[in-house]
Amino acid sequence: MTSPDLTADVVTLTRALVDIPSESGDEARIADTVEAALGTLAHLTVERLGNSVVARTGLGHPERVVVAGHLDTVPAAGNLPSTTDGDRLYGLGACDMKGGIAVALRLAATVTAPAVDVTYVFYECEEVEGDRNGLHRIATERPDLLKASIAILMEPSDAGVEAGCQGVLTADITVRGERAHTARSWKGVNAAHRAAPVLQRLADHTADRVVIDGLEYREGLNAVAVRAGVAGNVVPDECVITVDFRFAPSRSAEEAQAFIRNLFPEYDVDITEVVPGALPGLGQEAVTSLVRALGVTPRPKLGWTDVARFAGLGTPALNYGPGDPTLAHSAGEYVPLAQLRECESRLRDWLTAPRHAPRSAPTP
Amino acid sequence: MTSPDLTADVVTLTRALVDIPSESGDEARIADTVEAALGTLAHLTVERLGNSVVARTGLGHPERVVVAGHLDTVPAAGNLPSTTDGDRLYGLGACDMKGGIAVALRLAATVTAPAVDVTYVFYECEEVEGDRNGLHRIATERPDLLKASIAILMEPSDAGVEAGCQGVLTADITVRGERAHTARSWKGVNAAHRAAPVLQRLADHTADRVVIDGLEYREGLNAVAVRAGVAGNVVPDECVITVDFRFAPSRSAEEAQAFIRNLFPEYDVDITEVVPGALPGLGQEAVTSLVRALGVTPRPKLGWTDVARFAGLGTPALNYGPGDPTLAHSAGEYVPLAQLRECESRLRDWLTAPRHAPRSAPTP
Repeated sequence: MTSPDLTADVVTLTRALVDIPSESGDEARIADTVEAALGTLAHLTVERLGNSVVARTGLGHPERVVVAGHLDTVPAAGNLPSTTDGDRLYGLGACDMKGGIAVALRLAATVTAPAVDVTYVFYECEEVEGDRNGLHRIATERPDLLKASIAILMEPSDAGVEAGCQGVLTADITVRGERAHTARSWKGVNAAHRAAPVLQRLADHTADRVVIDGLEYREGLNAVAVRAGVAGNVVPDECVITVDFRFAPSRSAEEAQAFIRNLFPEYDVDITEVVPGALPGLGQEAVTSLVRALGVTPRPKLGWTDVARFAGLGTPALNYGPGDPTLAHSAGEYVPLAQLRECESRLRDWLTAPRHAPRSAPTP
Repeated sequence: MTSPDLTADVVTLTRALVDIPSESGDEARIADTVEAALGTLAHLTVERLGNSVVARTGLGHPERVVVAGHLDTVPAAGNLPSTTDGDRLYGLGACDMKGGIAVALRLAATVTAPAVDVTYVFYECEEVEGDRNGLHRIATERPDLLKASIAILMEPSDAGVEAGCQGVLTADITVRGERAHTARSWKGVNAAHRAAPVLQRLADHTADRVVIDGLEYREGLNAVAVRAGVAGNVVPDECVITVDFRFAPSRSAEEAQAFIRNLFPEYDVDITEVVPGALPGLGQEAVTSLVRALGVTPRPKLGWTDVARFAGLGTPALNYGPGDPTLAHSAGEYVPLAQLRECESRLRDWLTAPRHAPRSAPTP
């Protein structure tokens, strides 16, 4: 295993990381690489959980911050190996989020004397079901590793700050009927026909727009799947509508569930997943000082990200990383070279700027 | 190949036929058996097309009738070999329609001097897509073999006469939208939501009840499948509703198509199949005299059967056979022994009853 050269520039390092395939579930090689590269550095203590790697400074500062990113990517789509074209770096994960990982690795390797203690978290399986997520495992097994006054998740956010995130609820609404041969359809009850009011209610719903800390979180309520059908000559006895509800972080998971159940009181509603969102926390000192240092205007994060896991642990968190978030998971994803450099530079400045007083309660 | 004993009683013969597996596409063995058994009989001329067998008398009578049935069955469902229990014979195809085939074979073998000429048709692939249907092949390649004053299809009809049949139209109605990530769903258009009015229109539709020759053909219009869904976090851009329309035989195929298109003028309607029904033809002399001879009160046939193929060739046809049609394709299908004997007896009487004059135009 050749370790990447962490003294090389961030663009070179991003290309090297893109060229290590790391589809979810197959992160052993990239985790080995990261562990080996950081393990040689005297100012860091490195631990490994599965294919997640945690590296910490232990300088005794009263404040600690987390810088985190996931090592995995969605499956390749003909977009390996990496290429560059002008001021863009193309390739699987360039945007989501090998660029952010490269920035974090550069900081871990080169900021040997930060003004705060720093915990770098490189984790596995973010792109798949939540119970495989490496950050979930760390939060469960070693929550102490995630305690900090603030966490920065290096998810692509166009080198701006995306604060908080929506919650996500999925539910199956099942409408029932009674089978019959279509030649004698009056002997049955068509479940697909009975599903019309469910779809119409979804169509008629006006999603809320919730403003929190000056940021607008626009909700969304959608049927993402409709399934009915037994055979070509059978009146279907079941129609299942899968609903996706993106809800503002001001609603709790329980409130989101109640909202959906109240919207469809007469139907069989099975909540299959619900994960709360995260409040932007812009009123918290740790967040405002970071936003000020980065010199950006926060935007609301609409998709769900792991900032919600930090929020669940009581650690304010925000997304800040290179790359356009709408390019994530696209075959043509890329990261602008300038954003790689800008993110590295601004975070380096922030990590090394002298602190006059703890901005938050000290962590043990 | 041991030929079944056509001089044995109809119950024994039905059991022997049930015990020859003949799932659609796999009729070679049963067709060989039928061809061999009939080929030895001096009063019949036997021809084979694929795995369909046609046997004809050539007595020079001015009138000819067709007695027809399909040799294939749906796939087995743990219902082989045949068994008897009291007055019922159980097993794959006992009802649909080895019982009717046994009656026809008995008549072919033993009615050596009918009062009309008779064409017996034993055909393949009725239970699958129409272009594999053996009767379709004969109608296309040798329509002369199907010319008659009347055709009796030995489909299960509880030893009663089921006259005419409904037509069948299937169509896909496609509702379109625009994809978007559900976290930003307002950037898309949800095709599943837009499908609500289609399903509601189907739910609100009142099917016609059309009375023809005193028989009521009740129509049916149903969504038999609804399909939408790209991924759990994507607003679907397409929803396809498959519609099944069973229409009275008074509507032509063209009229049925126009009806569906007019019901959904603003949608993309793709007619995937349309087969016309068959008028009961109870006003025709050949039909009324048969009904009189059988001593039954005709009922409307609701499902589509091959009587429509004969109707399309200008030959009046009706369903008359042993077995409850609603048991067809069920694992527990059976045929009542009494109906086997009754159908054989009544048809034997009708075939041998002296004709005083041609009841229809003589066939060449």
